[in-house]
Amino acid sequence: MPETLADIGEFGLIDRIDKLLREEGARLPEKTLGIGDDCASFVSRPGYELLVTCDAIVEGRHYLPRFISPIDLGRRAMDLNISDIGAMGGHTLYALVSLGLRADTPVKDVEAMYRGFIAELNPFDAAIIGGNLTKSEGANFIDITLIGEIESGKSVRRSTAKPGNTILVTGYPGQAAAGLQILLKAIPDDDVRAHPLVQAYNTPSHRAREGEAVAGAGLATAMIDTSDGLLGDLGHICDESGVGARLIQENLPISSALREAAEQMKQEPLDFVLQDSDDYELIITCPPEHVDGICSLITSLSHIPVTEIGTITETADGIKLISHDGIPRDMTPSGWDHFAK
Amino acid sequence: MPETLADIGEFGLIDRIDKLLREEGARLPEKTLGIGDDCASFVSRPGYELLVTCDAIVEGRHYLPRFISPIDLGRRAMDLNISDIGAMGGHTLYALVSLGLRADTPVKDVEAMYRGFIAELNPFDAAIIGGNLTKSEGANFIDITLIGEIESGKSVRRSTAKPGNTILVTGYPGQAAAGLQILLKAIPDDDVRAHPLVQAYNTPSHRAREGEAVAGAGLATAMIDTSDGLLGDLGHICDESGVGARLIQENLPISSALREAAEQMKQEPLDFVLQDSDDYELIITCPPEHVDGICSLITSLSHIPVTEIGTITETADGIKLISHDGIPRDMTPSGWDHFAK
Repeated sequence: MPETLADIGEFGLIDRIDKLLREEGARLPEKTLGIGDDCASFVSRPGYELLVTCDAIVEGRHYLPRFISPIDLGRRAMDLNISDIGAMGGHTLYALVSLGLRADTPVKDVEAMYRGFIAELNPFDAAIIGGNLTKSEGANFIDITLIGEIESGKSVRRSTAKPGNTILVTGYPGQAAAGLQILLKAIPDDDVRAHPLVQAYNTPSHRAREGEAVAGAGLATAMIDTSDGLLGDLGHICDESGVGARLIQENLPISSALREAAEQMKQEPLDFVLQDSDDYELIITCPPEHVDGICSLITSLSHIPVTEIGTITETADGIKLISHDGIPRDMTPSGWDHFAK
Repeated sequence: MPETLADIGEFGLIDRIDKLLREEGARLPEKTLGIGDDCASFVSRPGYELLVTCDAIVEGRHYLPRFISPIDLGRRAMDLNISDIGAMGGHTLYALVSLGLRADTPVKDVEAMYRGFIAELNPFDAAIIGGNLTKSEGANFIDITLIGEIESGKSVRRSTAKPGNTILVTGYPGQAAAGLQILLKAIPDDDVRAHPLVQAYNTPSHRAREGEAVAGAGLATAMIDTSDGLLGDLGHICDESGVGARLIQENLPISSALREAAEQMKQEPLDFVLQDSDDYELIITCPPEHVDGICSLITSLSHIPVTEIGTITETADGIKLISHDGIPRDMTPSGWDHFAK
């Protein structure tokens, strides 16, 4: 029997985590107080704003433990928060990790989860400085608060897109949704974890470095990550900015993996691209003359594609999809609504 | 049938909460971005450190919904975080609220919970600037991250108590533990919510204003809140400061309500005072010459009693309880260990 949380208790677990973070995590900056007191503390740099976000994932709801390893789970939970900091253009500094865990959870799984957290934090020299551990009677949950910084006045919001702006998107939204379908339809013992779309779902890549560079260069008017799906998050930009959007259907990026999988599942690839999908790509709006600058900036950082998918319009237009035949179709943005579904 | 989260969906709920916070919550300070983007953002004051803490409570584990109203639940969840900021000497500024809720949760209960949050935040002019909503399949949970500030160098840690220091405690630790016992032993339909000890458990009072004043005056060497019980948290001070402690049994404050309830339950009042109890009182250590200053400072803010309960000693001593007969007894600190129990 593997050692469980019930065997070592809360304070035993805190000691293990503390040791792991000291040995494998990023060093705390000067004037920073980490785990071990009533609060953590740190000092903000003059001329910088602080960014803060939190996102929780719940077992059975946001992940299926039989399909994801604890280290990948840790990476995924951290990435979706890093993505939010990056979507404002910020740089991740500190994390607080709050876990609800059943007493029979193996200690080595919790340690692996923390290795996943720090695998994503270490490239930013970002440290876990606090958190909370509590026993869960039902589903395990991971709730992370992430703190980042950005030079004052440089953050890119979702409320500042302008009519005439070009709409760009990174990568291939929809891959994670297709990966989830593959997981849900897999027969037992069918190991589909290595499928590229399943990997896109289990361990999505954040685009935080790209977002930080775009914000730093001052080239974008609005930015958001696609955590509510391409249409859902473009809808957030439109609502908050008081604008509409036209998407050119044939420009929407569809990976060959997604095209193949959709065909096998007898579904339209477009449905995956537009609807709910946990991809954490970036939607960026900018004046047309900044498109080249943004594309080459992102290309200099990674080989992730950036695609022009449409244009921001006046608000009365809503979101329209221009299909191959040139006919505009009205699209109702539908984000990932946790309670209605 | 009351309206539920399933009826209005995640975005419907966000709109309701947003409206409630705008109408009833504290106004956001300048240069602060609240709910509605990928991240919240704010600017820290020069010469101040930021404090950050998070604490989660889980239905069935930390609270019993049949015994606590949604507004009191909100107050309690917020208070235990405010207590942590206060135990470092800080002032609460911002909250992020992450909720896991079943789809059948009535909307009015969630709104009442938020009224509980802001009832505790408004006196500090502190605002909810972010959070997360997710569907829970099992137990509801409330996870709050709280951000505070303190003048640089003024924070009071648990690692800085010195031999010879006097140990002070506010209020009556143990009342919440007795209140919980009363709840657990109550027969159905027996409304015990009005019992003062049940109220001490359901809506404990934080001592954040007192902690802030003590830290500001520079009179204390160490401070901690009693979220792990008097012995447990004194144990944290001893471990982190490398010291021991002697407690004078007859000095330990026992309220008449606790004495009465313990007698009825045929238990020793001392067991409640020393062991796990969710009271959120402060343990303060200080040089003996600062005792009067601290007591009068706290008395000027509230009528909560402050009691001298013992002395910090050299580390080899451990924690000893000096009973009426003058004989020291070894005490093993036992905090609230979530997994082992």
